[in-house]
Amino acid sequence: MYEALADTAPDLPRLAVEFAYGDIHTRPGLDAAGRELVTLGALIALGGVEPRLEAHIGSALNAGLEPREVVEAILQALPYAGFPRVFAATAVAGGTSQPPGWGRVFEARDLLPVTG
Amino acid sequence: MYEALADTAPDLPRLAVEFAYGDIHTRPGLDAAGRELVTLGALIALGGVEPRLEAHIGSALNAGLEPREVVEAILQALPYAGFPRVFAATAVAGGTSQPPGWGRVFEARDLLPVTG
Amino acid sequence: MYEALADTAPDLPRLAVEFAYGDIHTRPGLDAAGRELVTLGALIALGGVEPRLEAHIGSALNAGLEPREVVEAILQALPYAGFPRVFAATAVAGGTSQPPGWGRVFEARDLLPVTG
Amino acid sequence: MYEALADTAPDLPRLAVEFAYGDIHTRPGLDAAGRELVTLGALIALGGVEPRLEAHIGSALNAGLEPREVVEAILQALPYAGFPRVFAATAVAGGTSQPPGWGRVFEARDLLPVTG
Amino acid sequence: MYEALADTAPDLPRLAVEFAYGDIHTRPGLDAAGRELVTLGALIALGGVEPRLEAHIGSALNAGLEPREVVEAILQALPYAGFPRVFAATAVAGGTSQPPGWGRVFEARDLLPVTG
Amino acid sequence: MYEALADTAPDLPRLAVEFAYGDIHTRPGLDAAGRELVTLGALIALGGVEPRLEAHIGSALNAGLEPREVVEAILQALPYAGFPRVFAATAVAGGTSQPPGWGRVFEARDLLPVTG
Repeated sequence: MYEALADTAPDLPRLAVEFAYGDIHTRPGLDAAGRELVTLGALIALGGVEPRLEAHIGSALNAGLEPREVVEAILQALPYAGFPRVFAATAVAGGTSQPPGWGRVFEARDLLPVTG
Repeated sequence: MYEALADTAPDLPRLAVEFAYGDIHTRPGLDAAGRELVTLGALIALGGVEPRLEAHIGSALNAGLEPREVVEAILQALPYAGFPRVFAATAVAGGTSQPPGWGRVFEARDLLPVTG
Repeated sequence: MYEALADTAPDLPRLAVEFAYGDIHTRPGLDAAGRELVTLGALIALGGVEPRLEAHIGSALNAGLEPREVVEAILQALPYAGFPRVFAATAVAGGTSQPPGWGRVFEARDLLPVTG
Repeated sequence: MYEALADTAPDLPRLAVEFAYGDIHTRPGLDAAGRELVTLGALIALGGVEPRLEAHIGSALNAGLEPREVVEAILQALPYAGFPRVFAATAVAGGTSQPPGWGRVFEARDLLPVTG
Repeated sequence: MYEALADTAPDLPRLAVEFAYGDIHTRPGLDAAGRELVTLGALIALGGVEPRLEAHIGSALNAGLEPREVVEAILQALPYAGFPRVFAATAVAGGTSQPPGWGRVFEARDLLPVTG
Repeated sequence: MYEALADTAPDLPRLAVEFAYGDIHTRPGLDAAGRELVTLGALIALGGVEPRLEAHIGSALNAGLEPREVVEAILQALPYAGFPRVFAATAVAGGTSQPPGWGRVFEARDLLPVTG
């Protein structure tokens, strides 16, 4: 995606890398997994930014969160952002292309039943 | 606060306890600290819900997050929710009444300078 | 409020009256009570517009909705706009100055217990 | 949709049914049509949740609202949520698959001209 | 688009023309280019209204703004609306059908490098 | 305000200065007045960030915009962000402490009647 944006706004990828990653994500004081949990909460509540949510579900897994933890992070937003935003986020999680290990997120059989 | 809301909508506190806490926060698969990080991200991005943000900063500390981690969680929202929402959240963090151990969040001298 | 706004933007009250009321609220096809229910849903979801929400709670009562119906309209937003927005709306409903008949909204004893 | 979401987050459909429908939509004090009007207002103002809006336009018709009332509910959000959100909602209303009686929503000839 | 919306809500195009254009865009006191800059800021921050953003990028160019100014207007929203909304807006700018003179927006070679 | 925030998050003021001002506001390709118009549009649409809106009304005047242009910028957001957000923004404009030349924004007698 960064390549496509670069055609329209060639400085945008650089700003994203320098600010979001260089200035924020790499700060000490909170680990990468914690930062991605905050990011998931923010992206779900914002709404309408599905491509970024998909990317950060991948970042969350890369940061060491288990697929089950990512699904729980999405459900955790329910009382705060409401069902429509969480439905949208779950659809993103269910439809995204799958990096290694990713499949487990979407296979219900790999998740122990939570409620019974 | 729950008492005041109960005068207007007597079922609201019960619904909050049953759904937000009973059905969501107590689910397995993501620990309490992780759930509060997602919640902080969602509340910062929503905006305009300062009393809930204040309450969940307290919940985050109760869940074992360090004050520094809470501050970093707020800063982590910068690239996604923007400066105005993070300024508002930081003002909430700085002005809230302080539960035990809370003071360290607001005393800059307790925080090692991050950038030199 | 319209008077205060008129000092800053003297056309704003006129635009509100002409457009919101003249062009929209007075359209046929949906009665005034129904229009205020839509409006309450929109204002709760928007968030951060408490003075307008307070005004439209009054308009809803003026349109013939019962106080109990107004409280239920606020609770109806829970699954869609989430608890923080509904908490904020309930606080508005509970704290607003009270026009005739308004008190019943805020007195729990006037509301039959819903859940037992 | 519920089936697809169940693959990713198997508890989400259950939570939606239990909370949104079991705890909220079936409360006394406001009828089903009124509840769908609040819901439409909230979904239009939220934005970016078109699949849920489409579903609740169907629920509104099932609750006994006339197609014309649904169109008026969407227009009622104009002064509060603005034209872009209402344009998006109208596009949803115009493109959704049609349950019985639904066609009238989308056929201008069935609607008496409102303004002349 | 107006034609399609007219099938569902035949008064909506008229309301948009009368209010947005007749009452607001044509007011004195701020020129058309300035009005489109405000509009771009609002649409980017709202999010989820890509078709309207695409239309107003065209309106901004018609109002005399240079393509480079439109790109800068989008980047200007970064600190306030955050990267996800600006990524979405940049994607709209990069993918929209091109009115005369429009191509320059999307050809990086036409933009002097800003940072080196 | 920056001093107060520094007690809680000592890096936040630096990040705001470096990113918002250093990386964005000072970019070539759009003048300072144009950048503040975009910013006003974004802040009005975001909602709930009144202190930042007040600050940027001041920045807009400092960038050379006339008070009347600032008022028109706020009204320009009406069709896109809706009346509640514009009412809130107008209240900010009307109540803020006044830098030199600022008074004219709030004195209706200095504004020629726009509509006759």
